[in-house]
Amino acid sequence: MTPLNVASGQHLLGTRGMSAQEITSILDRAAYWEQYPVKLSNHLQGRFVANMFFENSTRTRFSFEVAEKRLGAQVLNFAAAVSSVEKGESIYDTVRTLESMGIDAGVIRMKPNGLLPEIARNIKVPLINAGDGNNEHPTQALLDLYTMRKRFGELRGLSVSIIGDIQHSRVARSNLWALQTLGANVSFCAPPSMQAAELAAHAPYVTMDEAIQADVVMMLRVQLERHEQKVFKTAAEYRAAYGLTVERAQAMAPHAIIMHPAPVNRDVEIDSELVESSRSKIFEQMSHGVPIRMAVMERALS
Amino acid sequence: MTPLNVASGQHLLGTRGMSAQEITSILDRAAYWEQYPVKLSNHLQGRFVANMFFENSTRTRFSFEVAEKRLGAQVLNFAAAVSSVEKGESIYDTVRTLESMGIDAGVIRMKPNGLLPEIARNIKVPLINAGDGNNEHPTQALLDLYTMRKRFGELRGLSVSIIGDIQHSRVARSNLWALQTLGANVSFCAPPSMQAAELAAHAPYVTMDEAIQADVVMMLRVQLERHEQKVFKTAAEYRAAYGLTVERAQAMAPHAIIMHPAPVNRDVEIDSELVESSRSKIFEQMSHGVPIRMAVMERALS
Amino acid sequence: MTPLNVASGQHLLGTRGMSAQEITSILDRAAYWEQYPVKLSNHLQGRFVANMFFENSTRTRFSFEVAEKRLGAQVLNFAAAVSSVEKGESIYDTVRTLESMGIDAGVIRMKPNGLLPEIARNIKVPLINAGDGNNEHPTQALLDLYTMRKRFGELRGLSVSIIGDIQHSRVARSNLWALQTLGANVSFCAPPSMQAAELAAHAPYVTMDEAIQADVVMMLRVQLERHEQKVFKTAAEYRAAYGLTVERAQAMAPHAIIMHPAPVNRDVEIDSELVESSRSKIFEQMSHGVPIRMAVMERALS
Repeated sequence: MTPLNVASGQHLLGTRGMSAQEITSILDRAAYWEQYPVKLSNHLQGRFVANMFFENSTRTRFSFEVAEKRLGAQVLNFAAAVSSVEKGESIYDTVRTLESMGIDAGVIRMKPNGLLPEIARNIKVPLINAGDGNNEHPTQALLDLYTMRKRFGELRGLSVSIIGDIQHSRVARSNLWALQTLGANVSFCAPPSMQAAELAAHAPYVTMDEAIQADVVMMLRVQLERHEQKVFKTAAEYRAAYGLTVERAQAMAPHAIIMHPAPVNRDVEIDSELVESSRSKIFEQMSHGVPIRMAVMERALS
Repeated sequence: MTPLNVASGQHLLGTRGMSAQEITSILDRAAYWEQYPVKLSNHLQGRFVANMFFENSTRTRFSFEVAEKRLGAQVLNFAAAVSSVEKGESIYDTVRTLESMGIDAGVIRMKPNGLLPEIARNIKVPLINAGDGNNEHPTQALLDLYTMRKRFGELRGLSVSIIGDIQHSRVARSNLWALQTLGANVSFCAPPSMQAAELAAHAPYVTMDEAIQADVVMMLRVQLERHEQKVFKTAAEYRAAYGLTVERAQAMAPHAIIMHPAPVNRDVEIDSELVESSRSKIFEQMSHGVPIRMAVMERALS
Repeated sequence: MTPLNVASGQHLLGTRGMSAQEITSILDRAAYWEQYPVKLSNHLQGRFVANMFFENSTRTRFSFEVAEKRLGAQVLNFAAAVSSVEKGESIYDTVRTLESMGIDAGVIRMKPNGLLPEIARNIKVPLINAGDGNNEHPTQALLDLYTMRKRFGELRGLSVSIIGDIQHSRVARSNLWALQTLGANVSFCAPPSMQAAELAAHAPYVTMDEAIQADVVMMLRVQLERHEQKVFKTAAEYRAAYGLTVERAQAMAPHAIIMHPAPVNRDVEIDSELVESSRSKIFEQMSHGVPIRMAVMERALS
């Protein structure tokens, strides 16, 4: 049933450049896995998958691990924090080392930008990007699209506002590319210090009042640690200017939904009582992460 | 064979409030697992269990993991140290996140007191308390009772002294509630600075000379890190006043046993040569942790 | 097919004292596993193996874990950094604790020297040394010998130079004992501050010019963290004096190979462009680690 033109056994480094058909094929397969009657299958029995996290992320690693184990794979976790300024060679050498040990696929997260494609070119096993720098986080975008498609049926023409620290966000970028490929209308909303200049040519920056008129209001985690004291001192000010407050949520269209890649900073970028409100898809997004990653792992290893 | 009135598919948050029948049912089932002829069963095949440790504890996590794997479950470990002052919301959000990913049960350890019941009320999957603050550590108490019952046949009328830092000890509390429910006589022994005022109504504080007359002398780990310099400077003094020394052990009744939840501080709360002495049940306790946790996980997931 | 005089169910603490027959038997069995047609076997099904790392080493742990899982074992990881000055009792107690929980074998790495044999004497399950202090790292030596034998057919008469921080190197020691037992000629090359006086009676120290004339040029990782500022300040000087530079590699014999236990410090002890050169066996060594460790785990548990 998988379209023949979807290459198999391949890397998933980003949503940029993926065809609409390729994305749709993954979403369709995720729907298959979401409905799968038993939790444990044997589709990847005897296959060895390594989760290689050079940047800490217990939640994303956990989601991949559930997906891999549901497919019956043997899972090995490797975590070694590597600073963003460290030479890429140490990451490359480690990935080559783990590859030498006979893994069949690798899920990889790292701080440096632009290093992953270079590594992927020199590695024989398929690599899945679990987040690299502020570049891409493709499985997050895919699970977001899955959530939107499930709610609205169709992505074409859907308006999606992405609000927050666009500059540092790989989630914003992966969503931008994938959503535009499927015909959605993406807008950004961010304070000037958090805007990404190079993305201005791809999507408009709008005001907060405009942003909350979208069908999908996607809040980003404010990376407090990246802006140091400044944002910490103005958490309340940030909320007032760019937070999804209860008041702002009331101005959203009746059919509109709230999304967030999590973990949330309650009462900073989103008010606490909205997190599990009826409009919020936040925990549903996480739930969709597992079938999406099953589809992605299966695609890499088939 | 499980009594019908033992609820299944349920949380295990503490021994307080558990009925004698419920406790006995777990001990009986642990006896079944201790005798089980093969190491690997398929009782929990296809079930996904998460060990969620918001406070570091490699030994307890390991014991749960052995138990879960012996039952054939898929095991995922999640560790993220969270300070005791951090908002409970981050723990709650994480547990909800992992639940969203499709786990069937969670083992959870955390520093905050009083947060776990609140989380459990909002979570659909059963949660097993692997230690929360100084509140409860029910599986430790259950394995302790199992060890006592195995040695003495009967807990009713047994005298048990719990000696050391009662104030900070969840082990002391979980043992107190479970032992009293089964009819044992519990005494505490601690320096004034380590006594828990709120427990005085439940069990008497006795002198060290009296404490070592019990059938079971249970030493607690002195939490040196919690009392800072003061206890460190007086480790020898602590030993002289409240340590189970070789001399004191000689004054114990011939049939009496030594217990300790481990890890021990050798030559602080217990003399090194007593740790593996014939009276000591310390490593046997750890050995019993596995069948107890098998019984508990099975109860949660059946 | 396993020679009857190779004891089974036993510890592997070091290569010192192993017979040629015993070593050869492991190499032969590794060759069997390297050719094994499927990745997942059931040779150790239902057996529980603990990787107990009291010193951090994600790569070695990963290699053991792949080996154990390829044999169908249940694998549990335990990591707790323990300083080299800490009392050995805490390591001993932890190993006894994990043993009590019902593991069938343990892989163990630790900083202290001389502690492992004492622990092994008091533990009933077989222990595999994954590196202890600067004493031994037997599976590394075995995979190195495997790599040499695969390349040269025969170890007798082979000249092997081990270059670098001999004093702190367990790899150097384990290779020395194993290589000499199989009839190879070992030389060391190191600056005076990195020589091990007690090894001078076993193998000669030669100059760098002599060292690179060997059939096997084995570079050691310069333990920058152990020599503090001094070596860091002279990384270029170290390279000039003891590094395997491109120029020096050109002076090697046409048939000679480069080895390194990894991870490498590129452009310190070895020039970056040599790491994946045709002479280099570095990633092949890592690849051989898996079948070697399969043979070792199987030997321990059969």
